[in-house]
Amino acid sequence: MSAIVRRTAVIDPQLNDAIEELRARFDERISTGQSVRELHGRDESWHPPALPDAVVFPRTTEEISAICQICSRYKVPMIAFGAGSSIEGALIPVTGGIAISTIEMDKLLHVDPISFNCTVQPGIRRRKLNEELRDTGLFFTVDPGADASIGGMIATRASGTNTVRYGTMADVVLGLEVVLADGRVVRTGSRARKSSAGYDLTHLFTGSEGTLGIVTEITVRLAPQPEVIASATCAFPDLKNAVDAAVALIGSGMGLARVELLDEMMIDAVNLYSKTDLELAPHLFLEFHGTTESTEAEAELAASIVEDHGGSAFQWSTRAEDRNRLWRARHDCAYACMAYRPSKKMLTTDVCVPRSALADCILQSRHDAEEKGLTAPVLGHVGDGNFHMALLIDPDDASELSAARAVSSSLVERALAAGGTATGEHGVGLGKRGYMRREHGDNAVELMAGIKKLFDPDNLMNPGKVLPD
Amino acid sequence: MSAIVRRTAVIDPQLNDAIEELRARFDERISTGQSVRELHGRDESWHPPALPDAVVFPRTTEEISAICQICSRYKVPMIAFGAGSSIEGALIPVTGGIAISTIEMDKLLHVDPISFNCTVQPGIRRRKLNEELRDTGLFFTVDPGADASIGGMIATRASGTNTVRYGTMADVVLGLEVVLADGRVVRTGSRARKSSAGYDLTHLFTGSEGTLGIVTEITVRLAPQPEVIASATCAFPDLKNAVDAAVALIGSGMGLARVELLDEMMIDAVNLYSKTDLELAPHLFLEFHGTTESTEAEAELAASIVEDHGGSAFQWSTRAEDRNRLWRARHDCAYACMAYRPSKKMLTTDVCVPRSALADCILQSRHDAEEKGLTAPVLGHVGDGNFHMALLIDPDDASELSAARAVSSSLVERALAAGGTATGEHGVGLGKRGYMRREHGDNAVELMAGIKKLFDPDNLMNPGKVLPD
Repeated sequence: MSAIVRRTAVIDPQLNDAIEELRARFDERISTGQSVRELHGRDESWHPPALPDAVVFPRTTEEISAICQICSRYKVPMIAFGAGSSIEGALIPVTGGIAISTIEMDKLLHVDPISFNCTVQPGIRRRKLNEELRDTGLFFTVDPGADASIGGMIATRASGTNTVRYGTMADVVLGLEVVLADGRVVRTGSRARKSSAGYDLTHLFTGSEGTLGIVTEITVRLAPQPEVIASATCAFPDLKNAVDAAVALIGSGMGLARVELLDEMMIDAVNLYSKTDLELAPHLFLEFHGTTESTEAEAELAASIVEDHGGSAFQWSTRAEDRNRLWRARHDCAYACMAYRPSKKMLTTDVCVPRSALADCILQSRHDAEEKGLTAPVLGHVGDGNFHMALLIDPDDASELSAARAVSSSLVERALAAGGTATGEHGVGLGKRGYMRREHGDNAVELMAGIKKLFDPDNLMNPGKVLPD
Repeated sequence: MSAIVRRTAVIDPQLNDAIEELRARFDERISTGQSVRELHGRDESWHPPALPDAVVFPRTTEEISAICQICSRYKVPMIAFGAGSSIEGALIPVTGGIAISTIEMDKLLHVDPISFNCTVQPGIRRRKLNEELRDTGLFFTVDPGADASIGGMIATRASGTNTVRYGTMADVVLGLEVVLADGRVVRTGSRARKSSAGYDLTHLFTGSEGTLGIVTEITVRLAPQPEVIASATCAFPDLKNAVDAAVALIGSGMGLARVELLDEMMIDAVNLYSKTDLELAPHLFLEFHGTTESTEAEAELAASIVEDHGGSAFQWSTRAEDRNRLWRARHDCAYACMAYRPSKKMLTTDVCVPRSALADCILQSRHDAEEKGLTAPVLGHVGDGNFHMALLIDPDDASELSAARAVSSSLVERALAAGGTATGEHGVGLGKRGYMRREHGDNAVELMAGIKKLFDPDNLMNPGKVLPD
């Protein structure tokens, strides 16, 4: 591990005082041990780790407020840490500081089964949340690959395979409690389905990656567990046919719950990692939610659309067990990629484009990667126009890193030219900062920088992320 | 009309210079005539009108930018004006200034039928937009009562009867072009379905009621026109049964497109205004969107839920003509209320609460209104937990106004205590400013005020709205 350790020689007296004051309050719930710091200095990406100077484990909003007050007083950076599953370096403490782990704030605080919402602490992870919700007949719909924390998913405005039917974190968030840099506690939104009451602070914090405040409570919409769930896979002769079929499936207007694309290399990686035996060809993974009648009707229509695009007959996973295995394999794609080339790290692309531009964008990008000789499996939430190319590289190999960056960069240019975005769901973190001006223009970036300055005048909240220099 | 005319005696030289400069550029497209100013000084509410000093009719973003630059230079207030259908006074120029009409910016600029989105100018109205979209197989889903402009709907974060299925303006907006107070043009969001790229300026402008900038272009998601649409009404023995049935219908998880409640007084007003002959009892108006099979299955389930709550058999409106008449009557409810007591004005409430609190909230509020002897029909987007009580009053009768305000105020308190909001869809305007601190708390209001100061340092964009003093 090539950790960048900050200030090894010179000890910062302000930092020392802050840690002393935190230790007086948090006792054994603050750690400066090397291994704990290392655990909170890296995510699941190629971005080089950097160590926080200490890690604190608060249990309440008041404790987070106290930490922020202390850090603000001593001008020490503070970085919230959830499950550590980010993949754009969003949680790496590039300037050192205090990592604030939310691991001990993992409660489901309140469920309203009539209004379809719940309130959680930020450290709860999505699988645990759904286990706790099981008996209510409701479920939390957003499902990125990783078993991420809900706080982290708010931070990156995450989404996942269910988005095409149920929406992103931005679509399901109703309200937040947030601690600002100076320790003030702000409540945004409400538990109501909608509101027109003033500026939308909820969405301003959602996706701000801990740079405007630390989220301490989250209220989200839930959905009723579908009466019937049916999953199917189908193979295609080539990638273009698979993408065109996906676009046609969405275009039909049926309410598919999942429409996922995996190219043949991704299928190979999945077969190896998840011990599946899928045909080595581009696939769509589909899921239908509804009643027996509605899913049957949808499946019939879907099968005919797939056939029109040269796709194979559906392979059904009807038993819950088989279905879970299939989707677990899909959710583990990032890990499958990493295992596919164990000596490499993953530089992942994440553009989202209007569906009308999707096929060209995927095909051109894969062509670019092939031309540079890069191993780059492709998978996509194609119903949303969002896809990932996992460029498997050795970041210490300058030419490989530069080739991957060139592919990634021209992919982003292509996406922006088509009216899309540099990141559909992973966030900006460290990896996408360079595209912010190109995507939003100088005037918008200037407004964002003004907002950052307003909320965090000393630039202490997760510094070095989201905004360009 | 009791217009408040500002500065009748003293002429403001700055204002005069601004108008002269605007006249030099816009020639006959600026008016200072009394009747034009009166038309742009009032909305559809009880709030007293106030005249702008002039009205400009720009045709392009560049022209709006030029207006903002001139107004900024002379420190003259600027207020965007769409269809004039606001009902919280959001567009009333309480400190005078230049009204900027978007009536000549009413183009549908771009439709992407594969990606299900379109880009429009702010002055286009929702009915015209849907007429222009008809042949694409898509429709714009947000339908407030009025034939509002899309720019105005962005300004107030509007919603409507379709929200329970298709979402609010906040749910469908993808990107905006906005002119800031100093004339700079900002683009936010993209044409992609989702994005995690930086701070969410799109949602910050959405619902800001022209106080942070003037929206000049809007990209929104569209939905496929359903294959089958079926509408039904049913009557209930009392209001509680009707609300409970609505909550149970949503709780069943079926994807109803519309679930609207009208109490018996509202039915009376509708019958008189729209020449319908509905039974004088609380009603639900329902709409099902889908295929023949899915709507039949849903209708059967819905009928049994309604029957469980003592509701009548469904009265179906199967022909498009009858359906349109039914929903036109529903959309005209505000006008029906005004016609119900022609000498009165309408002070409308707009709380939105978690559905679990809905029945209590409606019943208690109607009880309050009855106790004060006020005429107050009730209607609600009950699937969202949002309802309106139209308090029909003479605003010049101090005791009536005060009684209505007391009812409205305790309703808001009740909604906030239940985790709801003071305004579900009408916006803050002038009418709800007083509740902002109570709803959001001082810290959040302070952040909002900071944002306002950042975007509009001289407080020239629609001053006196949204934020409390």
